Amino acid sequence: LKSFSLTILGSGSATPTKLRNPSSQLVNIHDNLLLIDCGEGTQMQFRKYNIKCNRINHIFISHLHGDHYLGLMGLLFTFHLYGRKNTLNLYAPEQLADIIEKQLYVSDSQLIYPLKFHPLQSDKIVEILRATSYSVSSFPLKHSIPTWGFIVKEINNKPKVKKSFIEKEKPSIKEKIDISNGADFINSEGIVFKNEEITLPPVPCRSYAYCSDTMFDESIIPFIQNVNTLYHEATFTEELKEVSAQKNHSTALEAATIAAKANVKQLIIGHFSARYEDPLPLIKEAKSVFENTIAAEDGLSIDILL
Amino acid sequence: LKSFSLTILGSGSATPTKLRNPSSQLVNIHDNLLLIDCGEGTQMQFRKYNIKCNRINHIFISHLHGDHYLGLMGLLFTFHLYGRKNTLNLYAPEQLADIIEKQLYVSDSQLIYPLKFHPLQSDKIVEILRATSYSVSSFPLKHSIPTWGFIVKEINNKPKVKKSFIEKEKPSIKEKIDISNGADFINSEGIVFKNEEITLPPVPCRSYAYCSDTMFDESIIPFIQNVNTLYHEATFTEELKEVSAQKNHSTALEAATIAAKANVKQLIIGHFSARYEDPLPLIKEAKSVFENTIAAEDGLSIDILL
Repeated sequence: LKSFSLTILGSGSATPTKLRNPSSQLVNIHDNLLLIDCGEGTQMQFRKYNIKCNRINHIFISHLHGDHYLGLMGLLFTFHLYGRKNTLNLYAPEQLADIIEKQLYVSDSQLIYPLKFHPLQSDKIVEILRATSYSVSSFPLKHSIPTWGFIVKEINNKPKVKKSFIEKEKPSIKEKIDISNGADFINSEGIVFKNEEITLPPVPCRSYAYCSDTMFDESIIPFIQNVNTLYHEATFTEELKEVSAQKNHSTALEAATIAAKANVKQLIIGHFSARYEDPLPLIKEAKSVFENTIAAEDGLSIDILL
Repeated sequence: LKSFSLTILGSGSATPTKLRNPSSQLVNIHDNLLLIDCGEGTQMQFRKYNIKCNRINHIFISHLHGDHYLGLMGLLFTFHLYGRKNTLNLYAPEQLADIIEKQLYVSDSQLIYPLKFHPLQSDKIVEILRATSYSVSSFPLKHSIPTWGFIVKEINNKPKVKKSFIEKEKPSIKEKIDISNGADFINSEGIVFKNEEITLPPVPCRSYAYCSDTMFDESIIPFIQNVNTLYHEATFTEELKEVSAQKNHSTALEAATIAAKANVKQLIIGHFSARYEDPLPLIKEAKSVFENTIAAEDGLSIDILL
């Protein structure tokens, strides 16, 4: 399997705690680094966890509550001071462009690298980034201000060339790539090997969905149906269900209900209110509905599994 | 001596390192907490060092380079979420007001506490805050964008009532306060004690000056003359004197030269470039000109001494 992993940089909610920074996650998909949300202190987390942040070319901001984006400006300046050259793609609510402009202006700075701003606007699910082997889509969440979730998925997984064939016919690297792309093979004696005879079907494409912040909203289920790993915010326990609804957040039980109804394989909950020093009550509540649940922790790194 | 101390929350420069957060300092003067600069992650530093940040009523921002103010917005939101009621006074370059407004607007937030904005404008030294027992003044520094330094000083230190007098005549608390404020004392037998006979002269007023960021600039010397403790940025060593001047920063030697010429008692250097993992070369260089120099470290707490 090619690399597809998730590192939690911030698992807390609006006010950080000693153990939980505000929201930020790093996705490594086939050695491409994608940053999802960028709460205050995200660049310090890169240092803490020895992440080479200059390799990040795509940043996704779900919404403009401070705990999801206030670390961005510092990161943009740091890229600048580190002499970044690559284009940085930023997918975010459009009002962020102006805030960035203002902050560059007052510091008399012009970034030395290209910053390409992709405003999030659609109220439907739309693909916002398509690379050779993966894509990212955004979809609307229900929160107090315009908010988007993201789905990162593998695409175009290639058929595998059979080991027994490779050992016998010893195709070159180029020939193996051609076969992966669907070509038949003709050996030196002119014998034709049909593509379907010498390949195994591709590994299924894996996917990761990020839902933060949102109130309980079943309308997102079609978007995240069958993803391998779902991150869903779980700010409160059911005991505070009313507070949760008022604040347009979800309880752990609600997050798990979405996971179960969407038939995902694994659920990660996070964005815990600062009142929960220990996430155990949240995890217990979620597991009562969806067993394969884990709690986000700053620094936690997991592989997205089939 | 009444409390007058300084806690370094961030001792680094533009890019944070594992050990050094961007600039921020907390001054405790007579149990009033003043925050000077507020780089990204300052609110996390409050948690790390167990500082009750809700007691801060005055924040001073020297200039609008990101490493000096990007932690402010998160702190304003945190005060809001903690239910703050007290007025927060913010002394900062006037363009910051608009940046704060914008960021409140996009998050659909209205702070539940009064935020009073005091724009820094003067190119002279001016008193910007006067309390009963201390004052804060701002003065211009020479940097690539408009930048101010700050001086916090004790004022109105009261004469002390002599111990021998207290033991003999046993004045009430109110009478002791009156004597401190200059009154004579008449005992039950009608004997008059002249104020100058029963008091000791007041303890001299202490002062702390904060200079960051600035190039070497002797014109600030009159403003900071004779302060007890001077913080002066020292981003580079002399080896990088040209880079330093180009970037409108100071070397350790230059910081120490200012300290010596201003006849201060103690020098703290900080704002070290991320290239210096160990501040020893900076300290050595400064000490060659001004012996009583220490290096700022995140979490360092010192008393301002006479």
